[in-house]
Amino acid sequence: MKTLQLDLGDRGYPIYIGSDLLDCGALYAKHVRGRQVVLVSDSTVSALYGRRVAGALSDFQPVSITFAAGESSKTLDTYARLADELIDRRCDRGVTLVALGGGVVGDITGFLAATYHRGVDFIQVPTSLLAQVDSSVGGKTGVNRPGGKNLLGAFYQPRCVLADTGALRTLPRRELVAGVAEVIKYGLIADVEFLSWVEQHIDALLAGDDSALQHAVYHSCRIKADVVAADEREAGRRALLNLGHTFGHAIEAATGYSEWLHGEAVGLGMVMAAQLSCRMGKLDGDSVHRIVSLIERAGLPVRLPASIGTADLLRLMAGDKKVLDGRQRLVVLDAVGQGVVVEGVSQGLLSEVIDGCREGN
Amino acid sequence: MKTLQLDLGDRGYPIYIGSDLLDCGALYAKHVRGRQVVLVSDSTVSALYGRRVAGALSDFQPVSITFAAGESSKTLDTYARLADELIDRRCDRGVTLVALGGGVVGDITGFLAATYHRGVDFIQVPTSLLAQVDSSVGGKTGVNRPGGKNLLGAFYQPRCVLADTGALRTLPRRELVAGVAEVIKYGLIADVEFLSWVEQHIDALLAGDDSALQHAVYHSCRIKADVVAADEREAGRRALLNLGHTFGHAIEAATGYSEWLHGEAVGLGMVMAAQLSCRMGKLDGDSVHRIVSLIERAGLPVRLPASIGTADLLRLMAGDKKVLDGRQRLVVLDAVGQGVVVEGVSQGLLSEVIDGCREGN
Repeated sequence: MKTLQLDLGDRGYPIYIGSDLLDCGALYAKHVRGRQVVLVSDSTVSALYGRRVAGALSDFQPVSITFAAGESSKTLDTYARLADELIDRRCDRGVTLVALGGGVVGDITGFLAATYHRGVDFIQVPTSLLAQVDSSVGGKTGVNRPGGKNLLGAFYQPRCVLADTGALRTLPRRELVAGVAEVIKYGLIADVEFLSWVEQHIDALLAGDDSALQHAVYHSCRIKADVVAADEREAGRRALLNLGHTFGHAIEAATGYSEWLHGEAVGLGMVMAAQLSCRMGKLDGDSVHRIVSLIERAGLPVRLPASIGTADLLRLMAGDKKVLDGRQRLVVLDAVGQGVVVEGVSQGLLSEVIDGCREGN
Repeated sequence: MKTLQLDLGDRGYPIYIGSDLLDCGALYAKHVRGRQVVLVSDSTVSALYGRRVAGALSDFQPVSITFAAGESSKTLDTYARLADELIDRRCDRGVTLVALGGGVVGDITGFLAATYHRGVDFIQVPTSLLAQVDSSVGGKTGVNRPGGKNLLGAFYQPRCVLADTGALRTLPRRELVAGVAEVIKYGLIADVEFLSWVEQHIDALLAGDDSALQHAVYHSCRIKADVVAADEREAGRRALLNLGHTFGHAIEAATGYSEWLHGEAVGLGMVMAAQLSCRMGKLDGDSVHRIVSLIERAGLPVRLPASIGTADLLRLMAGDKKVLDGRQRLVVLDAVGQGVVVEGVSQGLLSEVIDGCREGN
């Protein structure tokens, strides 16, 4: 097991990375301050790992509550139902919530922890690659609204993150691939050496090789922890983590959050960001080719289907959370391994970039 | 105009207290960092003061959104509707919300500010005495659930509080009286000299005398700001502000949050807390008499009606937010002007205290 520390003063916490951590009762117990523990999970993950985690927490006689798996559950309705279950079970300010699952479980449980009785402890136990390398680390929590993803939420840090790469053995290949998108992102924005490692080990990652996965999770979390420690509330540098995400969120929204996985949309979004960087004279054609090749080798989409309209994407991008006072901010690349935030990109240029990524082009 | 500073480092802010501050555009402008301003209010206050405040904010061309007045609006449904209005109007992370109204408006707007795009700026413009002396200061925000008040929320501080005592001229007498309950509370927990002043000026306060109101608001906010600065997230001393509130919340819940105003329930709750303090040997009979007399002179209820059952109150008290890890914490008085938190009060004693406060006893 390896341990990283996210350095945020009295809100700092460890990220544990290893195999078969799910069963390690002592790891959880170290971070439970009260007597009540509630395990929150979705229907799929609960069936796979609920019993093991409940067993590891048996000293606390944990209650388990679950909701239907999928992004469509990430709503205020699910949040309200979970809150009412805590109320019915007389959970008080001393309760610790354990979020067992992927990004949806972590985000909604984190938001519940941030707001139940104005804030209770929670522990992240991410079981998807995407959650292990991204959503479980850094304290972004929230739910979706019909008008956009994560529009209601809070910055709220867990007491620890317990990333068990063994849990990835049951992850559907499509979700593993989606998680690789975020792994690639870290290399692209901050660490060309790590990107080269990903290029060399992409087949091992996709085959579910545990040692490769541990390496990828560790370095992804290392980069993320560095960025978050420097800018917890995304006043500046943290925005780099959104490479491909403004495009990606718009793709997800345009397709009703049901067709594309987040990582898939981010994969194509990074292709668009690379093309935009090239059009802005920041990145040469070879670098764009290198990036697109890796994203394609990972099995991620690199072309926009005709069913998604350019005007729709532009409109959805303008409503993105990263817009500040009407100024749209986008992450582009100054070089492979070096992300940068830019403002004032024209709608005409964005439109050209999007059209340039269409199928057939 | 007088100014107090709530000292919370980079989350600290000024509390402005005076007459006719509502129109003072420069005061608002000092605390608006972006270009978008949204005025949130309820139907009653919006009709009275919406136009004046919108006028003072005219440089920002504020949008106004309102909801039906009353505690029954303090729900996740109202919160979701307000959020969707912000989304529809393309409000981004640079928006400043202005909460114009009483406690319900401040609490729900504060929660919206805490969570919209994971946190935007907001300004409190409290228009009830209760909101001016209590709920607008200190960053407690939230909404109710069927199982209890304020069970979902956040600690989230405004950029400033603008308490215009002139706005109290239109406040219904019953609500003015309810606000006086919290004014009395500050004297009881922390400042016997201020309590004596309240005893001497209770008639002026109830008559709406502006100079008396400004004095009461100023000193109430001074005491609250001191307590909150020492313990923002209620790990210890801040719990003193809940004198009478565990009893009071249970009374409100037992009557469906519709019959009793919060301040009325707190008034009777403080009578119960005083009686409990006496039964615990902390307060003598004369002090209890002094406290009950003042609460009665203020026009607040000091007797529990037969329609509210003791067992129901005890059950509701056990679900209170101040319960930690199953241990019920209550605020009692070591002396007039000196609150203290105690644990482990027996259900039998609580039952006797409640029955002792019944009509006819």
